[in-house]
Amino acid sequence: MAERQQVLSPSRRGFLTGGLMGAAALAGTGLARASEGEEVITEIQDWNRYPGDGVDARPYGQPSQFEAHVVRKNVPWLTSDSISSINFTPLHELDGIITPNGLCFERHHAGIAEIEPGSHRLMINGLVDRQLVFTMADLKRFPRENRIFFLECAANSGMEWRGAQLNGCQFTHGMIHCVAYTGVRLKYLLEEAGVKTAGKWLLAEGADASAMTRSIPMEKALDDCMVAFAMNGEALRPEQGYPIRLVVPGWEGNMWIKWLRRLEVGDEPWEQREETSKYTDLLANGKARRHTWVMDVKSVITNPSPQAPITHGKGAMVLSGLAWSGNGAISRVDVSIDGGRNWHAARIDGPSLPMALHRFYYEFDWDGSELFLQSRAIDDRGFIQPTKEQLRSVRGPNSIYHNNGIQTWHVDGEGVVENVEIS
Amino acid sequence: MAERQQVLSPSRRGFLTGGLMGAAALAGTGLARASEGEEVITEIQDWNRYPGDGVDARPYGQPSQFEAHVVRKNVPWLTSDSISSINFTPLHELDGIITPNGLCFERHHAGIAEIEPGSHRLMINGLVDRQLVFTMADLKRFPRENRIFFLECAANSGMEWRGAQLNGCQFTHGMIHCVAYTGVRLKYLLEEAGVKTAGKWLLAEGADASAMTRSIPMEKALDDCMVAFAMNGEALRPEQGYPIRLVVPGWEGNMWIKWLRRLEVGDEPWEQREETSKYTDLLANGKARRHTWVMDVKSVITNPSPQAPITHGKGAMVLSGLAWSGNGAISRVDVSIDGGRNWHAARIDGPSLPMALHRFYYEFDWDGSELFLQSRAIDDRGFIQPTKEQLRSVRGPNSIYHNNGIQTWHVDGEGVVENVEIS
Repeated sequence: MAERQQVLSPSRRGFLTGGLMGAAALAGTGLARASEGEEVITEIQDWNRYPGDGVDARPYGQPSQFEAHVVRKNVPWLTSDSISSINFTPLHELDGIITPNGLCFERHHAGIAEIEPGSHRLMINGLVDRQLVFTMADLKRFPRENRIFFLECAANSGMEWRGAQLNGCQFTHGMIHCVAYTGVRLKYLLEEAGVKTAGKWLLAEGADASAMTRSIPMEKALDDCMVAFAMNGEALRPEQGYPIRLVVPGWEGNMWIKWLRRLEVGDEPWEQREETSKYTDLLANGKARRHTWVMDVKSVITNPSPQAPITHGKGAMVLSGLAWSGNGAISRVDVSIDGGRNWHAARIDGPSLPMALHRFYYEFDWDGSELFLQSRAIDDRGFIQPTKEQLRSVRGPNSIYHNNGIQTWHVDGEGVVENVEIS
Repeated sequence: MAERQQVLSPSRRGFLTGGLMGAAALAGTGLARASEGEEVITEIQDWNRYPGDGVDARPYGQPSQFEAHVVRKNVPWLTSDSISSINFTPLHELDGIITPNGLCFERHHAGIAEIEPGSHRLMINGLVDRQLVFTMADLKRFPRENRIFFLECAANSGMEWRGAQLNGCQFTHGMIHCVAYTGVRLKYLLEEAGVKTAGKWLLAEGADASAMTRSIPMEKALDDCMVAFAMNGEALRPEQGYPIRLVVPGWEGNMWIKWLRRLEVGDEPWEQREETSKYTDLLANGKARRHTWVMDVKSVITNPSPQAPITHGKGAMVLSGLAWSGNGAISRVDVSIDGGRNWHAARIDGPSLPMALHRFYYEFDWDGSELFLQSRAIDDRGFIQPTKEQLRSVRGPNSIYHNNGIQTWHVDGEGVVENVEIS
């Protein structure tokens, strides 16, 4: 098998004629081999010879055995245990803007709560006219909505503050996913309880063993937040908050409380651990920025990248990546192959939705020389993704969260890709 | 546990005040119980007491153990074996418009081909300037696109031609799914091969043991067809054609050749078995309609439905369903609760995309009386979903395929739902 592939690999046989490739001018780019005169596979393969498994084989389907490498991965040395830890979405193996439920990154503070939905309740208390307790069945009697949003951990790309650290976009940018949520607008539940005039803040609390709590301003809660019970069509996954999670569009993932069990209305923020000692941004002068909730405009090239080198040799190639902004939709993505000297407009393909991932492509002809790949996103409010140097000049060297700096991948003549910094 | 739920169930305690519920007027509908004076769960649940599994527990995630009933199901008596058979998407358990990959219905003619992608090839031959063979790596060097499309089997709802047959929308309408595809526009591959002037038809052939073949007019092939390698972000699932399938937007599912291995350009249709003796529509006079490719405008109420009865008693409730058309987007869905006497505009929520599923909702106050639920979709080309009677008057009693008639669910005073026909 390995030998057969080697014989047929276009990059090794030199069948690619090259030439700058674009959607409008593909004919004759030589991206396939003429069968005439070529060594081709002539034996009939087993899957064409014998019937396969029937429709009762897998009532809930699974990926192909040949995709077993496409998994979330953690970095064991990053945290002291796995129950308060992180794993990462394999962005370099995905395409489009939807993240499959099985591959959405996880961040837990006390492991995965395995909740029996019949005994789960959501309480609303505090500065309300009526304290309320909802069952799951109650929640499903409210009008629902469906929205596609990205969720990014505030610490995504956090290791990059102090230089290029991790060799792969899964690790540098994989604390993000994007799914279609179904749920109830939080506003409807708060209206049902009747928020008192003094109620300006909301404390959201999870039912896991960490009882994760975050303060959310009432203005945001009444704007676009949701209590979601489904993702990509089916029930939430346990690691994503089953049976319900809070959806806080465009804001840092830690606020999207999983296993949501309580919403308390108050007159000021609670200043809990996860919004004071954590999820604030320590500056060079020792002060901390707080209430930095919005995930700023950002992008990353997913292919090629350190885990997804160029294996087809020079000639026509597809560069692909993701862009997003907590402020709205992405209006433009530029790509550089020379470390930011020259920029080219990338092609955004698929839905362009506010606070959702955007997929971009840039097709070009690789001449086999060294590349320094970068992408730079601009959102529809005009924010431009900064360089890491620009970020550090403002925030100093102590930051963990909210690194939206431009990422650089170095590609050598063999197509091997590395995480680098250039200045 | 069972006892506790019973005590708290709002429908049994009568806390629901009822009142017509709409998005704009929710306050005071009584969809939750005041905690004051109520018996509430006071014990601390295990998931709040003990840490759960960590991030290395499931590198590829799975649904909650409490969702184990949400699976594809087949109907063993429908076909003589499972390798040339069908299973059905559990529409009544889903929401939004995206079908999770693990729940997309299957229709195989020789079981699931488990293809090793490194040795898979796509050939283009026939009336072309250059016969070509593509590896998977070759295909990924062409510009890609991302589109969300429904795929419906031509035989979906086929059992309903002769009256109400199967008790559940999973079985009456579950031969449909809707996912986000990533792939290459077929046009680019055909341009690479150079279609000769006489080339007016395309034969698409699968690599499974049935070597499924269908003829497709060149006009459609060059319009919006794709060769897809990803669904909902990740690689195609084996049962959906891994590593590549044809995408034929809006047209019957049988033409979306899975495990695609060959595209032959010809000057006339091939008249293969699956487009002559099958996938044609036998009329009362013994003649057969052929080339009936477009899936016409259609809809179904997924909740309530026979597998998803009303369990919360009377008062505020959410009716939900799906609508779609192979002609374009859905412009309107009407709902009737009295068997078609009166119609009410449903609310379409989420993306409205051509040839994709549309999710609709209708919130109303159930007074506990008998209901005859129907939905009727209208697409943006003006086609209106017909009644089953209208269809039968034109097509006669022998049809299997292309039943897009209006479905009726009967709801009794207890909320039990049944598949019925009314005239």
